[in-house]
Amino acid sequence: MSHNGFGHLLRFTSWGESHGPAIGVVVDGCPPRLPLAEDDIQAWLDKRRPGQSRFTTQRQEPDKVKILSGVFEGLSTGTPISLLIENVDQRSKDYGEIKDKYRPGHAQWTYQQKYGIQDYRGGGRSSARETACRVAAGAIARKVLGPDVTIRGALIQIGARAIERARWSWVETAKNPFWCPDAETAGLWEQDLDRLRKAGSSTGAVIEIQVSGMPVGLGAPIYGKLDADLAGALMGINAVKGVEIGAGFAAAAMTGEHNADEMRMRDGRPVFLSNNAGGILGGISTGQDLVIRFAVKPTSSILTPVRSIDAAGNEVEVATKGRHDPCVGIRAVPVGEAMVAFVLADHLLRHRAQNGA
Amino acid sequence: MSHNGFGHLLRFTSWGESHGPAIGVVVDGCPPRLPLAEDDIQAWLDKRRPGQSRFTTQRQEPDKVKILSGVFEGLSTGTPISLLIENVDQRSKDYGEIKDKYRPGHAQWTYQQKYGIQDYRGGGRSSARETACRVAAGAIARKVLGPDVTIRGALIQIGARAIERARWSWVETAKNPFWCPDAETAGLWEQDLDRLRKAGSSTGAVIEIQVSGMPVGLGAPIYGKLDADLAGALMGINAVKGVEIGAGFAAAAMTGEHNADEMRMRDGRPVFLSNNAGGILGGISTGQDLVIRFAVKPTSSILTPVRSIDAAGNEVEVATKGRHDPCVGIRAVPVGEAMVAFVLADHLLRHRAQNGA
Amino acid sequence: MSHNGFGHLLRFTSWGESHGPAIGVVVDGCPPRLPLAEDDIQAWLDKRRPGQSRFTTQRQEPDKVKILSGVFEGLSTGTPISLLIENVDQRSKDYGEIKDKYRPGHAQWTYQQKYGIQDYRGGGRSSARETACRVAAGAIARKVLGPDVTIRGALIQIGARAIERARWSWVETAKNPFWCPDAETAGLWEQDLDRLRKAGSSTGAVIEIQVSGMPVGLGAPIYGKLDADLAGALMGINAVKGVEIGAGFAAAAMTGEHNADEMRMRDGRPVFLSNNAGGILGGISTGQDLVIRFAVKPTSSILTPVRSIDAAGNEVEVATKGRHDPCVGIRAVPVGEAMVAFVLADHLLRHRAQNGA
Amino acid sequence: MSHNGFGHLLRFTSWGESHGPAIGVVVDGCPPRLPLAEDDIQAWLDKRRPGQSRFTTQRQEPDKVKILSGVFEGLSTGTPISLLIENVDQRSKDYGEIKDKYRPGHAQWTYQQKYGIQDYRGGGRSSARETACRVAAGAIARKVLGPDVTIRGALIQIGARAIERARWSWVETAKNPFWCPDAETAGLWEQDLDRLRKAGSSTGAVIEIQVSGMPVGLGAPIYGKLDADLAGALMGINAVKGVEIGAGFAAAAMTGEHNADEMRMRDGRPVFLSNNAGGILGGISTGQDLVIRFAVKPTSSILTPVRSIDAAGNEVEVATKGRHDPCVGIRAVPVGEAMVAFVLADHLLRHRAQNGA
Repeated sequence: MSHNGFGHLLRFTSWGESHGPAIGVVVDGCPPRLPLAEDDIQAWLDKRRPGQSRFTTQRQEPDKVKILSGVFEGLSTGTPISLLIENVDQRSKDYGEIKDKYRPGHAQWTYQQKYGIQDYRGGGRSSARETACRVAAGAIARKVLGPDVTIRGALIQIGARAIERARWSWVETAKNPFWCPDAETAGLWEQDLDRLRKAGSSTGAVIEIQVSGMPVGLGAPIYGKLDADLAGALMGINAVKGVEIGAGFAAAAMTGEHNADEMRMRDGRPVFLSNNAGGILGGISTGQDLVIRFAVKPTSSILTPVRSIDAAGNEVEVATKGRHDPCVGIRAVPVGEAMVAFVLADHLLRHRAQNGA
Repeated sequence: MSHNGFGHLLRFTSWGESHGPAIGVVVDGCPPRLPLAEDDIQAWLDKRRPGQSRFTTQRQEPDKVKILSGVFEGLSTGTPISLLIENVDQRSKDYGEIKDKYRPGHAQWTYQQKYGIQDYRGGGRSSARETACRVAAGAIARKVLGPDVTIRGALIQIGARAIERARWSWVETAKNPFWCPDAETAGLWEQDLDRLRKAGSSTGAVIEIQVSGMPVGLGAPIYGKLDADLAGALMGINAVKGVEIGAGFAAAAMTGEHNADEMRMRDGRPVFLSNNAGGILGGISTGQDLVIRFAVKPTSSILTPVRSIDAAGNEVEVATKGRHDPCVGIRAVPVGEAMVAFVLADHLLRHRAQNGA
Repeated sequence: MSHNGFGHLLRFTSWGESHGPAIGVVVDGCPPRLPLAEDDIQAWLDKRRPGQSRFTTQRQEPDKVKILSGVFEGLSTGTPISLLIENVDQRSKDYGEIKDKYRPGHAQWTYQQKYGIQDYRGGGRSSARETACRVAAGAIARKVLGPDVTIRGALIQIGARAIERARWSWVETAKNPFWCPDAETAGLWEQDLDRLRKAGSSTGAVIEIQVSGMPVGLGAPIYGKLDADLAGALMGINAVKGVEIGAGFAAAAMTGEHNADEMRMRDGRPVFLSNNAGGILGGISTGQDLVIRFAVKPTSSILTPVRSIDAAGNEVEVATKGRHDPCVGIRAVPVGEAMVAFVLADHLLRHRAQNGA
Repeated sequence: MSHNGFGHLLRFTSWGESHGPAIGVVVDGCPPRLPLAEDDIQAWLDKRRPGQSRFTTQRQEPDKVKILSGVFEGLSTGTPISLLIENVDQRSKDYGEIKDKYRPGHAQWTYQQKYGIQDYRGGGRSSARETACRVAAGAIARKVLGPDVTIRGALIQIGARAIERARWSWVETAKNPFWCPDAETAGLWEQDLDRLRKAGSSTGAVIEIQVSGMPVGLGAPIYGKLDADLAGALMGINAVKGVEIGAGFAAAAMTGEHNADEMRMRDGRPVFLSNNAGGILGGISTGQDLVIRFAVKPTSSILTPVRSIDAAGNEVEVATKGRHDPCVGIRAVPVGEAMVAFVLADHLLRHRAQNGA
């Protein structure tokens, strides 16, 4: 157990604050002899990097990753892999003003209650900046999973507007700044967000992660279930308020015969005729695609003034100046993918330990 | 790490199968000198016990708990508390028929894929019977939390029919067989479920857990967040497919200014004017009530035949005879409460360890 | 982390007090489809069982183990294996007299300081009775390791008298009540212990555990080293005060060239010409035999009166009446074997997880 | 569980190889608001630093530590503290020669067997260089323990020559290059080591750590005993082959009445009349001084040629050129202190979690 570590056999420990000299992550337990270079990790970090469109924060961070250990002559050695990302664009602005004013909906208040101290600059440890560490760790997890496992995420709702699933195209997700699989909805989101941005507001989003090429048998019942670990992993991402798998909340309204994914044989192999389970039964992967969704709340850092208090107990109004995301859900897509990748890779090793293959 | 243990400083390990001689749970790390008797645990087990209405399985299990260790002269001693519940009503029927037929939506298939063996009688390890262990462990967790923390659950949706929140009454939850806080809806559910039961079908449900008297500061960012641990704990309950906290999935559609829970001072103390956060910010409890919901799918054990395969790879039809729940969500209420209690008690100790109070 | 659990992937949780209704242990993470019956475990428990000679406590405990879960039709299922051993011979004598008098060298004093409460009857949780759980868990670990790994222990010193290593015979260990590999020394120990027993005294011992058939590569540097885990496992056995591996403390006096185990090729395979390392280099097993020794102090429960205090702060004299071991080291042999077996089996799974074979 | 993490509530994760760009350690779970500056850590690193006398390796490493996170305005914030130490003096010599030749007694062989790859330069991950991370983490642990707990180490034996305990002076340990508490023996060691160094040999040592100001009640029976954790922590240090507590192996030869530490009252408080227990009973600290010893083997890197094999299976002779320690035990003193400090600080938090004070 530790507060800033994640995973069991494959395990990462993340550290760093938004405005410190650097952030980083140590990945422990990686199998030896996997090809691994900085570029393998950088590719995923570049997807999460802010400032790539007008719909994410304008903070300019190259997010250049350095491998400090655990890799030798292009291969993992089985020893801990230390990754470091320098903070470059910490603006030296005066934080004095907001330092003691609690933004409603922001972690600043609870950190202060819990610890009695915090690095408040840029959100400190609670900043979404930390999610770069998750993405870096996730890149290594993908190597552990191997090329047959494909983990892809898409934004399926921004504000009240959801995509039309019939128009789903994975190709499309790379063509718009939203990871949106539905070109038509992407265009509408652009208008929605421009309006919100100008209004000094923000909104939430729903992300869906799908995994194909899933090994059968991952997940360790009863208290290491794959769905439980995925839910914990995704709910732990900044601003996430809900997680569902397969039919999710909609399953509550179904009957047993509609919800059950019937099975037939095709070409001598068992197939499922539907996927309400989202690829998991009894906490163990079925081999079907994993389907997981999570909801991200609107960021609390907005220009619109809201009522709050300060550290001295005065009633104040708070409006956040500076660079922020109108929809933090956008950048949550690669982060969600990374967390799913890490959970799966850890479970792959756990499964192999107990079952030998 | 272990597959069948839950929690960190306060930790339980559960064991047992549906049709073995007994099930049980060992609770480790309990603070010393807490008053604890079998009755304290039995009271909660009785709430979960099946066969109390026609809407749950007719299996008759007294679920009588025995304390085998860790309690001396009515007080916890700080050593592990071993709890044992004998299985009494394992019907000696012939399981041969269903043993090799995979019920769609049931864990039997994945257990077989993962382990190549299983005690298939009554669902074996994957049976909801194991949730009695969770409830027993949760009873001890409530002792650790003390009397000021109140954890209550209610069923807020069965099938497509949700309660009317304006009619919410906690008193009402004890008056109907559904833990329903809305008397009027309870009556309709009765009709809905009778119809489903006669049709040999089943349906899902949504449960809401609320916690009042919450200590401020529980939760250990970044990878021991309270919401992440709660989500994992609830998603790990049998048949759960979704978890949300506070505004949950609805937060996706909100704007930042509507989602943010504004703060004012009242009688010299900070108060929140709303609770979209569900009592957690940045993974740390705010002191507001916790509000968590989870969705339970319809049970896969139904009389209606569904298409499946058997162990030999033949296509078959499966209909489950015997005693089953038309809505397993009903019995999930005390189980959800117990898991929430355990997560909170564990975090109380974790918080005390780092912060000293 | 938990206080009463041991191991990582293969993990056991022990519970129970000396004079409670039962003691037990839950073994989690066992690979599926291993043949396992109560007799497999009973055989090892019988070796540890007290009252088999006049040199161990006369408490008569059948130590009959029951498997309550995790085994189906003679095979492990991959789910937790719960083992229960009833306490039979808890004498209903009056403990009032010693209850508040702290025996020097006994855990009673520290338990009271730590917890402010304890089940003092028969030593409660700190009783050597708990070691039966270790032996039972170790029996399962041996199944995980398979028949090629042989773990054997011997008593090599009682009091000041050590065996003559040149006379070492494993066959001999089964022929005397001391697990002594040297028949001549065994005879002398008999006289030594009779004298001590009559004098109402006790003495210490040194045990050596050897493991042959060792897999190469077990141990996970830097903080999961095999030697570190073995040292912790053995030091954690009741009354152990020292652990050494290979040349151990004697290595301090050696030169580098004498200590280094030189290597040659024999029949195309690398061999070591000595084994000062005791089978471990850099925390990883070399494939050579493991050689580990641990020292057990004399029991503090003796007839000879010693000076102490009581709970009220009075100065008192304490003499322990009742049934006790003149040399607890004797029964530590199967316990040490069991702990070594468990560490190795856990590491076998850990190694397989990371390295795939 | 992870391979390169140590501790539970207070936990560090170390990373880095001897000849990589840097080594480092992340300390997680540190209580908030402890004063902490780089100098606090540097002071302890300077004690371990090589090249300070002719009796340790001549590698010149400033071992300058940087705090990258977790500290704000001079105080710990409760978030992970990342410490980085750059490698400066990695000589760019050609390692080609020794790369495939296994030094007897060195971890190179087992790493290769386990991982099939390694950064062999300077010992890579198995290098004693990593112990700087332990010392850095230990410096933070001392802060957690507070000023009343004093942890001091001394070298009490080099080769076959032990100190005279009657001459013990803590003041003396700072006056010679050996942490020797006995001035006279220190002079003799100087001669011994000069002779060994010239002969191209090396030798072992025994270190004793003492802790005064111990809190009562640390240690969590049965499987989180303080002595078990200390033994594991010390046995895990490079080259350690034995650990003992209090009377240690000598306890085997004692009788119960001589071994038991009798108690009396002095000034209204309980005192022990001896300390054969070394400050621990039943795995729990008594409040007496902790007394722990560990044995370090002679380094395997010596000029004297020894017989070995190479990666291709050829029989070879190996002599290690370059900079090495004639007695690695010397630098093990601050490392041992650091590990003891970390175990105690972790247990302080664990105790507080369960017992509330």
